[in-house]
Amino acid sequence: MTLDEAVRLIQPVNPESAAGAQKRLDRLTKPLGSLGRLEELALRYAMITGEVKPTVPRGVVFTFAADHGVAMEGVSVYPPEVTPQMVLNFLRGGAGVNVLARHAGVEVRVVDIGVAHDFGSTPGLIQKKIMRGTKNLLREPAMTRAQAAQALQVGVDLATEAAREGVGLVGTGEMGIGNTTPSAVITAVMTGRAVAEVTGRGTGLDDAGRVHKIQVIEQALERHRPDRHDALDLLSKVGGLEIAGLAGLILGAAAARVPVVLDGFIAGAAALIAVGLQPLCRDYLIASHRSVERGHQAILDVLNLRPLLDLDLRLGEGTGACLGIGLVQASIKILTEMATFDEAGVTERD
Amino acid sequence: MTLDEAVRLIQPVNPESAAGAQKRLDRLTKPLGSLGRLEELALRYAMITGEVKPTVPRGVVFTFAADHGVAMEGVSVYPPEVTPQMVLNFLRGGAGVNVLARHAGVEVRVVDIGVAHDFGSTPGLIQKKIMRGTKNLLREPAMTRAQAAQALQVGVDLATEAAREGVGLVGTGEMGIGNTTPSAVITAVMTGRAVAEVTGRGTGLDDAGRVHKIQVIEQALERHRPDRHDALDLLSKVGGLEIAGLAGLILGAAAARVPVVLDGFIAGAAALIAVGLQPLCRDYLIASHRSVERGHQAILDVLNLRPLLDLDLRLGEGTGACLGIGLVQASIKILTEMATFDEAGVTERD
Repeated sequence: MTLDEAVRLIQPVNPESAAGAQKRLDRLTKPLGSLGRLEELALRYAMITGEVKPTVPRGVVFTFAADHGVAMEGVSVYPPEVTPQMVLNFLRGGAGVNVLARHAGVEVRVVDIGVAHDFGSTPGLIQKKIMRGTKNLLREPAMTRAQAAQALQVGVDLATEAAREGVGLVGTGEMGIGNTTPSAVITAVMTGRAVAEVTGRGTGLDDAGRVHKIQVIEQALERHRPDRHDALDLLSKVGGLEIAGLAGLILGAAAARVPVVLDGFIAGAAALIAVGLQPLCRDYLIASHRSVERGHQAILDVLNLRPLLDLDLRLGEGTGACLGIGLVQASIKILTEMATFDEAGVTERD
Repeated sequence: MTLDEAVRLIQPVNPESAAGAQKRLDRLTKPLGSLGRLEELALRYAMITGEVKPTVPRGVVFTFAADHGVAMEGVSVYPPEVTPQMVLNFLRGGAGVNVLARHAGVEVRVVDIGVAHDFGSTPGLIQKKIMRGTKNLLREPAMTRAQAAQALQVGVDLATEAAREGVGLVGTGEMGIGNTTPSAVITAVMTGRAVAEVTGRGTGLDDAGRVHKIQVIEQALERHRPDRHDALDLLSKVGGLEIAGLAGLILGAAAARVPVVLDGFIAGAAALIAVGLQPLCRDYLIASHRSVERGHQAILDVLNLRPLLDLDLRLGEGTGACLGIGLVQASIKILTEMATFDEAGVTERD
């Protein structure tokens, strides 16, 4: 499926297709609505997939890795070589996302979509490199429109393949030293908020570092003047490749009617791009958590998403998405495994 | 162990015993502190147990069931026969708590501590009935001081036994038609808030029903004038038996240095009683979630606990505790399974 086909294929979700699920939820042995957001989640899943009696969906988190030319401007406290080092850590199962994925029974697929490192033959790594990192967005466009479209296509393909395998929940993850900088640019442009309002500390900048990062972003905006009504323009000017891959993943999953569990700030920036390309994909999104990173709330507001968790996370990688997938699976079990009043012989309310 | 022995045995938690855990968390391949509350949880667990390299703790939720004489005053939308019916539902695995417990890998132990029903020989039920429901707190004391002490002892015994078996996390659950009424009385007395501020809709009262419930509680307070400095006095005057069992469970677990994961509003009322008997037990408590039931926030404020989840739950049974236990287990896995910078060969921050 091409990117354009995916964009055209995405349908509005149908609230009526959840009527059966709502009816069952109301017959379960509990006060009406007393499982709150777990009930909402089960309904949302039914609405997206159209399944009346869903089986517990298999979850996969896609962790896209890429480098950023802007990292040379001192916008991160970690050097760029950490990107490939962390890719190897993911593949060995030692990173935060691996631990939480095992905890939740979720599979992690690691994708090199633009790391500035030659991995050679590395078992387990999905090799889809578009280029060795983006260019420095402060000086020039991060990539061409064609490269951005190619990176989007990688995400569409991976989502399409996963859906074909029967994966029922797709989670977003990423790794890329410097990637809160393009994410903040995208957030500023797509939400209309001031740069300072949506630019955070990333992996741990101090106050001076954050002020510098804001200046870099403001200069980049002045240079590129991205068009907020042309998400591909914005994406190609600032990157990154992992954000493009994630935006494609969202579109591909929505086209296949597979719910997408978003991680934090960078995932949110990717969602803004995806929604820019096809507003209907918003209804396929589930926000796993509210990140500490400044700017994430602005994204959640614009997308009108209420996060499931608020655990002061700011790691990325897909860590929050793993916990979110666990909650969606729990909600499906509530819908399908709880006894009804009739089945259990429990008296109903007066 | 007697109740008095448990109360005397409880020690202040030792923050120093978590120094090793903090050191390891800071060496893991992630930005410092970027797993937020999961890191806090792992530290809290280390502080409580004194374990430096904890194994993933087994979790058990104790669901205490009991009836309430005050149910005859129309303070619930469900009739009292639902209490024993739900006990049977728990034993068959069809209730909300069973589904979420299976999801999280938690065991549910169901305790009859005062249901107004003769279960005869019922496999799987822990039979510890003190009496067939409390008396009507609007007219007379719910139980005697001796009965309240007996019910507390049941909880102490169950916690002690679980700790001896190697259970590392104890969750609180309950079932008892009418039990938000004594919980609201306890909350009003122990937090000093006005009755209307801490009295909610329970399983689904309408506005008029809630006004009536507030009147019942205010009349009960006038009749009993419970002494907030004598938690056993308050407990015996208003009940319930499951609240007493839970308070004993908390004290017994704290005496054995086992963390207690609280469910919602009724668990909170039990915690107020336990803390009234031994203030040091507060540090052994982990609040799994913020209930929709009005009054829960007042309890969390007084206990100075920040809940992990905010999912609009108001079912009780131990449903929120199951999800909370899952998060504590995840936090221990983060502490023990993630690779350090050295192990993974990842460069540290500049």
